[in-house]
Amino acid sequence: MEAERILATYLIETPLSLERAAQKIAGVQSSSTFVAVPGETEALRERVGARVERIEPLGSAAAPGLRGATSPEPGRGYERGLVAISIPYDNVGPNLPTILATVMGSLYELSELSGVRLMDIAWPAAMAERYPGPQFGVEGTREKAGVQGRPIIGSIIKPPVGLTPDETAEMVRKLAEAGVDFVKDDEIQANSPRSPLAERVAAVMRVVNDHAERTGKKVMVAFNISDELDAMLRHHDTVLEHGGTCVLVSINSVGPVGVGALRRHCQLPIHGHRNGWGLWTRHEFLGIDFIAYQKLWRLVGVDQLHVNGLANKFWEPDESVLASIRACLTPMLGGYTVMPVIGSGQSARQVFATYQRSQTTDVIYLAGGGIVGHPAGAAAGVASIQEAWEAAMQGIPLEQYATSHPALQQALEAFGGPL
Amino acid sequence: MEAERILATYLIETPLSLERAAQKIAGVQSSSTFVAVPGETEALRERVGARVERIEPLGSAAAPGLRGATSPEPGRGYERGLVAISIPYDNVGPNLPTILATVMGSLYELSELSGVRLMDIAWPAAMAERYPGPQFGVEGTREKAGVQGRPIIGSIIKPPVGLTPDETAEMVRKLAEAGVDFVKDDEIQANSPRSPLAERVAAVMRVVNDHAERTGKKVMVAFNISDELDAMLRHHDTVLEHGGTCVLVSINSVGPVGVGALRRHCQLPIHGHRNGWGLWTRHEFLGIDFIAYQKLWRLVGVDQLHVNGLANKFWEPDESVLASIRACLTPMLGGYTVMPVIGSGQSARQVFATYQRSQTTDVIYLAGGGIVGHPAGAAAGVASIQEAWEAAMQGIPLEQYATSHPALQQALEAFGGPL
Repeated sequence: MEAERILATYLIETPLSLERAAQKIAGVQSSSTFVAVPGETEALRERVGARVERIEPLGSAAAPGLRGATSPEPGRGYERGLVAISIPYDNVGPNLPTILATVMGSLYELSELSGVRLMDIAWPAAMAERYPGPQFGVEGTREKAGVQGRPIIGSIIKPPVGLTPDETAEMVRKLAEAGVDFVKDDEIQANSPRSPLAERVAAVMRVVNDHAERTGKKVMVAFNISDELDAMLRHHDTVLEHGGTCVLVSINSVGPVGVGALRRHCQLPIHGHRNGWGLWTRHEFLGIDFIAYQKLWRLVGVDQLHVNGLANKFWEPDESVLASIRACLTPMLGGYTVMPVIGSGQSARQVFATYQRSQTTDVIYLAGGGIVGHPAGAAAGVASIQEAWEAAMQGIPLEQYATSHPALQQALEAFGGPL
Repeated sequence: MEAERILATYLIETPLSLERAAQKIAGVQSSSTFVAVPGETEALRERVGARVERIEPLGSAAAPGLRGATSPEPGRGYERGLVAISIPYDNVGPNLPTILATVMGSLYELSELSGVRLMDIAWPAAMAERYPGPQFGVEGTREKAGVQGRPIIGSIIKPPVGLTPDETAEMVRKLAEAGVDFVKDDEIQANSPRSPLAERVAAVMRVVNDHAERTGKKVMVAFNISDELDAMLRHHDTVLEHGGTCVLVSINSVGPVGVGALRRHCQLPIHGHRNGWGLWTRHEFLGIDFIAYQKLWRLVGVDQLHVNGLANKFWEPDESVLASIRACLTPMLGGYTVMPVIGSGQSARQVFATYQRSQTTDVIYLAGGGIVGHPAGAAAGVASIQEAWEAAMQGIPLEQYATSHPALQQALEAFGGPL
């Protein structure tokens, strides 16, 4: 395949043959309407048409995954498979919203499909000219956080809503004194009447800067600046002016163009919070797989991206989490990665398995209750996670390491044995 | 319920009781973590907590709608119902991305749910201060299109990709001469190497302005300006400078913040193209219903919004299309509506049923093949649709009206009898 095509791979289910369904998708991605129209010649189709590159059958199902598919022959079942379709890059150019309208557009509405999920996407090299990707990534995040050779260990402001800026700052003070590298706002707390962002940044950064002066350790705080664009850029500037080192954005509800506009203005790492992601992925024959999703957000320029964690409190199985971590750390266009943010129900107990199965320390490892809910306090909570990573990196089972590390011992007792 | 709360209604399915599932959702929308944390008091929960306002059981299912739900008791089945949950407005303030992160956030990932779909949302009146809604809506669109008392009849540039700007202008000339009120770019054609937007706008508007000078009729062309923000604003200005009267945006792939930033800059009606919408709605126990979806985009400020049409070529049933039209025309905050755009496989044959069942002419009625594929040419295609609306508004069945209107007669023969 020539380099100047965009290649999208789908998992589909169809009452038709895989071939006919794939041709139908190629049709809506380039040139189609319900009757032949003047001006649509074979030569034009050849030049600008989408092309089916690959079809891989994956069995069949008796009942359809999604509603509204029209079977030509009741009772014949639904074929499943992977199909790869390419479109000429010059049809769309380096225009991400329109590429998305093409590869994630009306195909989801086709009655010829009872399932359609974008599994992967390959960008042409030329996309890198307009989309340089993350500005900081793993290295830049590590540098600003001052953490090398081990994961960045962080926590979350809890309760997410209801604290005043001063109360939030007080919680950050406790977390900083407990030894965390990183703290994040909750996704439901941005700039609100109860906690105006400018006041929260001022109060929190006073604590962070004081702590840094006294100890030399500057905690990275991801302030949730999600808002309308002008406000979001203003919030960014506020964080920057106060010496902050990270901003958090709810990427799905801001959207690719809003996050992209922030990226072009931004001087700080962007913490990409994927809340709402379940909508995009929870049904296995609908939406988009994380492999494709993270490629989209990396292109937009997010530096850190949530991936859940092992034995998380959400629906996601461990295999999916591990595949997500691998995806984030697989170099893309020009070789950059995005830093996976592990979170959701995490404590020391998941650390050994996380490292053993992912073989990386290039992660932000977030624990809320797993730090502040530690029986001996937050400092012991942080220590338990640090100890667990020390053990994991040396290949020492947590239970063994815990015999000489009481914080870890208590964590395993409080939060459950190691995975 | 006091006015200062945001009310979200969900269709859910759960292996737990509806009550427990609803409380779980309320928890992630306000104040929760997996162990009790210091600082989270009862008083704080009372002040900032989300509240379950209503639970309406809707039977049960033997198998789960979505993967990953954890049943406490295998074999007990899955309860279904509507639950309404309110959050205090001051938790979030007039910050749409963060409201979305709250009402469409991590709840989609809950293992306590095997189905979750946002059905409706009620905005507090105070939201209108920051979000004035559509700038033009039905009235402004009608004024700029110069069409009163009947639907705005339009067509789509086909083939969607491959035409040069001059070829596109030539197609617009034919459509203008055929008598259309409205023409739109396809969603997969924005600013591309094959058809740079500035050249396309110049070529097309030369035709549109010439036609207007000769006939007094200025066709509304919805130019697809979907792109990164700076480019999108520049494209808008180009359209405006050439005397254009509408811009098209792929709302899902631009995202709420990008469209909102355009709205604040915009001097033209925004044609909201919902391509990709199937991802959000195709599974009946996942995502978001159009009732809630159009309220979101109306708030952002879209003036025209796609709704499919009766007997469309996609998966969507007629009842759903009619509910969507009604939703768009139901006044929201301050009384504004959004103009429904009917399209997908439309021709004269659907017109009578569309009017009879929706009782409105406040729509844009789009036909691609139904106009240019008419056996007697595009002018007859437009005439057939105009005649069908004349008949429908007078309550005359299409077959009867067709006996004295040959263009309509031919359309019904070519595209199928009336619905």
